[in-house]
Amino acid sequence: MSNPAQPIDVAVIGATGYTGRELLRLLARHPNARVKLVTSRQHQGTLISDIHPVLRGVIDLPCVQLDLSAIADSCAFCFCALPHGTSMEICGQLVERGVRVIDLSADYRLRDPNLYAEWYNRSHRDAAHLKEAVYGLPELFAADIARARLVANPGCYPTAAVLALAPLAEASAIHLDRIVIDAKSGISGAGRSPSLDFHFPECDENLWAYKPGEHRHTPEMQTVLAQIAGDEATVRVLFVPHIVPLERGILATIYAPLRRRETTEDLLDMYSAYYAGSPFVRVSPDLPRVKNTAYTNFCDLSVRVVGDTVLVFSALDNLLKGASGTAVQNLNLMLGLPETAGLLP
Amino acid sequence: MSNPAQPIDVAVIGATGYTGRELLRLLARHPNARVKLVTSRQHQGTLISDIHPVLRGVIDLPCVQLDLSAIADSCAFCFCALPHGTSMEICGQLVERGVRVIDLSADYRLRDPNLYAEWYNRSHRDAAHLKEAVYGLPELFAADIARARLVANPGCYPTAAVLALAPLAEASAIHLDRIVIDAKSGISGAGRSPSLDFHFPECDENLWAYKPGEHRHTPEMQTVLAQIAGDEATVRVLFVPHIVPLERGILATIYAPLRRRETTEDLLDMYSAYYAGSPFVRVSPDLPRVKNTAYTNFCDLSVRVVGDTVLVFSALDNLLKGASGTAVQNLNLMLGLPETAGLLP
Amino acid sequence: MSNPAQPIDVAVIGATGYTGRELLRLLARHPNARVKLVTSRQHQGTLISDIHPVLRGVIDLPCVQLDLSAIADSCAFCFCALPHGTSMEICGQLVERGVRVIDLSADYRLRDPNLYAEWYNRSHRDAAHLKEAVYGLPELFAADIARARLVANPGCYPTAAVLALAPLAEASAIHLDRIVIDAKSGISGAGRSPSLDFHFPECDENLWAYKPGEHRHTPEMQTVLAQIAGDEATVRVLFVPHIVPLERGILATIYAPLRRRETTEDLLDMYSAYYAGSPFVRVSPDLPRVKNTAYTNFCDLSVRVVGDTVLVFSALDNLLKGASGTAVQNLNLMLGLPETAGLLP
Amino acid sequence: MSNPAQPIDVAVIGATGYTGRELLRLLARHPNARVKLVTSRQHQGTLISDIHPVLRGVIDLPCVQLDLSAIADSCAFCFCALPHGTSMEICGQLVERGVRVIDLSADYRLRDPNLYAEWYNRSHRDAAHLKEAVYGLPELFAADIARARLVANPGCYPTAAVLALAPLAEASAIHLDRIVIDAKSGISGAGRSPSLDFHFPECDENLWAYKPGEHRHTPEMQTVLAQIAGDEATVRVLFVPHIVPLERGILATIYAPLRRRETTEDLLDMYSAYYAGSPFVRVSPDLPRVKNTAYTNFCDLSVRVVGDTVLVFSALDNLLKGASGTAVQNLNLMLGLPETAGLLP
Repeated sequence: MSNPAQPIDVAVIGATGYTGRELLRLLARHPNARVKLVTSRQHQGTLISDIHPVLRGVIDLPCVQLDLSAIADSCAFCFCALPHGTSMEICGQLVERGVRVIDLSADYRLRDPNLYAEWYNRSHRDAAHLKEAVYGLPELFAADIARARLVANPGCYPTAAVLALAPLAEASAIHLDRIVIDAKSGISGAGRSPSLDFHFPECDENLWAYKPGEHRHTPEMQTVLAQIAGDEATVRVLFVPHIVPLERGILATIYAPLRRRETTEDLLDMYSAYYAGSPFVRVSPDLPRVKNTAYTNFCDLSVRVVGDTVLVFSALDNLLKGASGTAVQNLNLMLGLPETAGLLP
Repeated sequence: MSNPAQPIDVAVIGATGYTGRELLRLLARHPNARVKLVTSRQHQGTLISDIHPVLRGVIDLPCVQLDLSAIADSCAFCFCALPHGTSMEICGQLVERGVRVIDLSADYRLRDPNLYAEWYNRSHRDAAHLKEAVYGLPELFAADIARARLVANPGCYPTAAVLALAPLAEASAIHLDRIVIDAKSGISGAGRSPSLDFHFPECDENLWAYKPGEHRHTPEMQTVLAQIAGDEATVRVLFVPHIVPLERGILATIYAPLRRRETTEDLLDMYSAYYAGSPFVRVSPDLPRVKNTAYTNFCDLSVRVVGDTVLVFSALDNLLKGASGTAVQNLNLMLGLPETAGLLP
Repeated sequence: MSNPAQPIDVAVIGATGYTGRELLRLLARHPNARVKLVTSRQHQGTLISDIHPVLRGVIDLPCVQLDLSAIADSCAFCFCALPHGTSMEICGQLVERGVRVIDLSADYRLRDPNLYAEWYNRSHRDAAHLKEAVYGLPELFAADIARARLVANPGCYPTAAVLALAPLAEASAIHLDRIVIDAKSGISGAGRSPSLDFHFPECDENLWAYKPGEHRHTPEMQTVLAQIAGDEATVRVLFVPHIVPLERGILATIYAPLRRRETTEDLLDMYSAYYAGSPFVRVSPDLPRVKNTAYTNFCDLSVRVVGDTVLVFSALDNLLKGASGTAVQNLNLMLGLPETAGLLP
Repeated sequence: MSNPAQPIDVAVIGATGYTGRELLRLLARHPNARVKLVTSRQHQGTLISDIHPVLRGVIDLPCVQLDLSAIADSCAFCFCALPHGTSMEICGQLVERGVRVIDLSADYRLRDPNLYAEWYNRSHRDAAHLKEAVYGLPELFAADIARARLVANPGCYPTAAVLALAPLAEASAIHLDRIVIDAKSGISGAGRSPSLDFHFPECDENLWAYKPGEHRHTPEMQTVLAQIAGDEATVRVLFVPHIVPLERGILATIYAPLRRRETTEDLLDMYSAYYAGSPFVRVSPDLPRVKNTAYTNFCDLSVRVVGDTVLVFSALDNLLKGASGTAVQNLNLMLGLPETAGLLP
């Protein structure tokens, strides 16, 4: 257990994106952590608060060049918010220098390097640490996270989907090979780099599906659900993400064939019991709305049985519970703090 | 064939809602129609352009009390945009007085009065005309519409879903009893009456599902699809609508199990052939975006095969192709005009 | 100075509006305050978190009927978020029972009961406490607030405008009788009651001015600015508010004729010096954007001299710095805590 | 007068931007014009409807390289939607080849080449045609436009501002050297090239002022207003544009000191009289809202007198009345058609 009187110094690598910004917002108010150092390749010397003016007067550190020794010398923990492909060049080395790392990229999420190579079109270059990395979904893997040197923070869509399906998968209540996940996401999920698709006049008052059946979060969902369901399980997810005109928020509407007759009421009870010890999962008979989760670390769930299909509805803030909020929750677990430290409301 | 030199006089009953407004916009620029008379119970005497200021200088008629004789005396055609339940008190009588009616409510869409009673919680009070009413989806029932005295203009969601599924249903390519329709709609679909759900600060930056498996457009979809597929077909649709924060637009993402192996390319060809004669259905390999259909009468479709599931994507403007645009298209058919009259671009 | 080990119990009267909700969000994370009691006339018995689902798992108190004794017995502080006209029936009585009150309505903001009567179309019924009430703008009146029994929390527009103009008014740098304030506000400022104007399809993609020269915040601005400028000053503000389609945020663009030649640089320096001790006012050469203040208690200011006119730009979150954030800041002052307690970032 | 049976062939140069797209939408439904040819440097060979999918099935021409002879051989009219600086390389040459040109750039709007050089940071390279160009605001200069070979289509902000102020300027009712124009614009006005400022997550729920007193539309407004007011007039406009989160729409709120006592009613009458013959200017006692002008060619105006200041409110669709709609209105004038041809509603 850490000493609350002495906040832990942490580094944030790649702080100029949206997840970096949200991480800094959360850490600034965290009672037990202090941002010591932020890095940016492109904006070296610039104050991070000039890049994210919302942080002015909150965190006014200058961005520095990435220097592994400097981080290892000054910080016990490091968040890495680099793009995938780049992250695996860095995280392993930090771990070897004694820094505990929470990686927000996809690089350490898929245990199997072949699966990584297949979906990310490049071979994995840090297989050693890939093997030891812990999938950082606190509601499911808290004990492992607490001990981990390297945590692979989950993707935004997988967080919504896995939390939604875990109780059913663990109870063997559904046919795991015929799951449809129709997810809708706000546009901050696409990152901070401008492009025509996300130019305001293009996506305002617009709505579309993209990469149906081909999104890289598919194998992540399948792997984790198979792990929950047990070794023999074959999980097949048809995942179709959509873009909706709002800044932050994911709603996943999930359709799965039941293996036995169930009622909405029983399943709601089952979900409530399953998440009784999880302060950031709220189960309710009311269908969730993303706005109730915006700027929070909550994932809101509800369930409906319609005929022989179960529908699960899952809402969260993609930048918080879908990224930086869970990252801080993981930090809390690794520090032996209450999961909610610095994260309420 | 009507004489283009002499525009037809038409009446609009219940012109104060959004579909009424859009109807008036379209009719104002229609080369062969002239709005003669608009009615409103609540706003008698008020200029319709004071209720819908967008119409100022375009259509400045005063709202009058509904008077069947006055309509029958002056108009050959009447659009009825009353709420369901009220519409069936009026439309039959107009038809009997020789007015051809296009009804935008749900009252004449379900051929079976029992089905109507079950889903609309009231018994149908105009069974005679219910029997003769033609379902007004021009792409499928043009010949019947052309001759009809009473046209039941389709619902917004059924228009999106039925146009998306008709080629597959007619070709017996899918299991019709396991269709999932995950639809997302802009908020004008909820009508013009204020409520907390659709108060701007509540639905801005928000997103939610509603009435999963219970929406009244379900039987409408099932009935029409069964009609297309042939008498023996059992159609079961799991329809889940969602609210997205934009004014106008529906995107339906549809999942159906294939009965035989198909490719995306073949299905795209099949769709293109099926809609070759339909000027308002655009089939493309690109996934549709609602904004490309906004303020138009187009329905944009695309298809993807993923494993043994076919995905159909269908986008339209719920107020136009999903309501008033199709209503004008029906008028064109009834007048023997080109379907596109007054509706391009 | 309060004992940080023992949080203060506070009551929130009229918690079902947006300012009530935001107040509860802030208080839930405040290290030195605890919400003991929330009242609602309309929703007695309902959990406040069923009215504001964002609060589920955060504050799940049931709404109780307003009972002055119950509040006085259990709470040292009370926030009153009732509509104006109602608030003055309550606040004085609470004060007399020993409760220190922060009133978010307009009832105690105008020192002069005649001015109140003129602008609010009713006579003031608590003149005694009106006289003692302190105008709760912490940046200007901290010492008085710290001692106050009754604090009149400022209006959202006056907060933006007065913080923007105070340095100029105090320095006698502008003609105070020819100020133009063109303010733009998000829609949460209009409250939580649905109406046609703020029905999503009406105000989405829309923009308009309202009550030009007639808004009730005009006398509030004029009174406070006159107080800052000194007794002889005649302040005349032409205030024109506008509605813009976003949930939260005010941007005030202010035009004032300079009394002497000034430069942008000098005025920026003057502003920085003026607000050096104010943790929630950020002065910058960059023009402020409301999004940088959203979900924060900051007011961002910038200045430009164009010819003989000075332009001041002022941005804040109308629900936080424009209402509930300032209310908590006042609580902090009244408790002898740092102004920033519970309010960062 | 042209023969309505034979539509005029027109070319659109630089059709890939938003004004190009809107021009094509309007021309597609114009009864007397036919788009013969569209050019794009960057997208040669691509269908214009693949760049603007809203045009699929409406205008499916391939983009061709700019070739002055080809245009002169096939088109009597040409719209030029190139960026300023580029436009003046082309338009003069087209005019000399006998093509009548409507230029949507800023290149021919400022009669004085020195003023152009000062505000656009480059010297004007087509002074000859600059001299002959007619400022294309149809409500003010219809007769000149009808005869023109080269029309300089006005800027979006100047259209809103000049229509708002013309009656007052002509009547010498205001001090022309102390006008404040606080304008708010939707984001399509910034064009179709992506940038961080207009990346959806940056400008959604945001609001800011830019270039206060420095925007290039300032001299355009001043020049035209001086022309209306008469030779001796000194016009000084303090113009402050703002970005608001909507796609299309400008609202200008204008403050001007009256030279004599006036009433709101008298000024409304004056405005109505002034614009009695202008089908696209709607004067109303109601304050205008941009949404009532969206997708139309209307400019909506209202007026208020507050003390010795007159406020004028002006709303329009920046892409239509503020650009392409006025361009088509100019085409109509040049063809001797009714101004409203193809532009209603």
